[in-house]
Amino acid sequence: MKITILTMCPDLFRGFLTSHVVERARERGLGQVEILDIRPFAGGSFRHIDDSPFGGGRGLLLRPEPVMRAMEEAVRRGPSEGVVRAALVPAGLPYDQRTARDLSRCRHLILVCGRYEGMDARLYDRVDMRISLGDYVLTGGEIPAMAVADSVLRLLEGNLKEGSAEEESFENGLLEYPQYTQPALWRGRKVPEVLLSGHHERIRIWRLKESLRETLRFRPDLLEKKTLTGEEARLLEEIREEERSTNGSQSYGTDEADEDAR
Amino acid sequence: MKITILTMCPDLFRGFLTSHVVERARERGLGQVEILDIRPFAGGSFRHIDDSPFGGGRGLLLRPEPVMRAMEEAVRRGPSEGVVRAALVPAGLPYDQRTARDLSRCRHLILVCGRYEGMDARLYDRVDMRISLGDYVLTGGEIPAMAVADSVLRLLEGNLKEGSAEEESFENGLLEYPQYTQPALWRGRKVPEVLLSGHHERIRIWRLKESLRETLRFRPDLLEKKTLTGEEARLLEEIREEERSTNGSQSYGTDEADEDAR
Repeated sequence: MKITILTMCPDLFRGFLTSHVVERARERGLGQVEILDIRPFAGGSFRHIDDSPFGGGRGLLLRPEPVMRAMEEAVRRGPSEGVVRAALVPAGLPYDQRTARDLSRCRHLILVCGRYEGMDARLYDRVDMRISLGDYVLTGGEIPAMAVADSVLRLLEGNLKEGSAEEESFENGLLEYPQYTQPALWRGRKVPEVLLSGHHERIRIWRLKESLRETLRFRPDLLEKKTLTGEEARLLEEIREEERSTNGSQSYGTDEADEDAR
Repeated sequence: MKITILTMCPDLFRGFLTSHVVERARERGLGQVEILDIRPFAGGSFRHIDDSPFGGGRGLLLRPEPVMRAMEEAVRRGPSEGVVRAALVPAGLPYDQRTARDLSRCRHLILVCGRYEGMDARLYDRVDMRISLGDYVLTGGEIPAMAVADSVLRLLEGNLKEGSAEEESFENGLLEYPQYTQPALWRGRKVPEVLLSGHHERIRIWRLKESLRETLRFRPDLLEKKTLTGEEARLLEEIREEERSTNGSQSYGTDEADEDAR
């Protein structure tokens, strides 16, 4: 696949273009990223790329014509079928892993970086979707474009170094369980005993439970959306009992480690 | 303020460090960004920065000691009071504009970029918060760190070029209204007539209505959380009537432009 990023700030992508995920995709012939500067499409040297909003207001908006010409040029340079145009703007659909997966199936993804002061809304009819990265205000759509490109490129078949646990984790609707590596004892804190036991079934249950605990703590909204299995419902009840008995003190899956350390 | 970013991939930030928001903050003496490479803190050349997870599983986790040493070094190099340490990981509190505003008040913000395959969970007790950018999987916390740094730096007093409408918009709990700039007629599409009228009160009402329409379309969850004013409730009812009468066809605030074009 090809990803073309339309931006007024091509320099921002200098580091990103040399990142592992971008380089690996290119080396393996899976995907390439092209940065297209919108400015030259503004026409003569006295033509501006942005202008004041009609009806008054602060800030400058991207004018529609330069962006449209850049989009047309991007289409000309890439595969003509399987093109998806997405604008990265604050007023858009919240981005999630499902959208990343959908986008990873297109042949040519064109990402239009909005300036957060805005772009002319007539451009919204010329893109296939508007994507928002979250409820925070950034200077422009450049960082969101990197996030989308990174998340999409790493989903391309063969581009993941190894299957990623987090990814499966997101797709089962829960946050990931806490993980531990060497050393087993670090600054007085031991790794939970069960993880050293070699007992696969106990490890599986511990991880599922801690995954539920993390989700309950940080993202209770995900639990509301999820259909729990019988096992998950039982573990969640155990967690709620534990949280009640610790009387509101913070607890995030390190209880066993603490007990071991005593 | 100072922002220190701890990362295994310092090169990724080359473009970001030259971005307008970072340069403007530095020039005005409002804030500086330092990138701290975690790798040298791993110790001798045969010591790894990552290792396999206890209990089995794919991928490599960041070992706790190099990250901890890098955090300690970051604290030594920056202001010793008003330090906030945040880890950028998938299992964290969803980032939003309120958190950005809170973070913009600290003196030294230390951002720890997790590798998305994970970091040793014992580090979670050594940071003040865990931040997640959204429900999508990235290669690492570097792009989220740029998003946090960008959103925080632009909030520092005097660092915004001009007050940003989007920002107020996010803070009133609605998405921004569509904006339009030159030319008034572009590829057959006219700017909504009301915006050319010069009638401030009509423009204000149109913008509020279209802001509600955008929010209803993309983020109905925001409307559920919001306490509506009488005016907002009335406009929302008008929108719902309009959407019913157009019988489900897409409509996003360009109706007036369409009517004008007929």
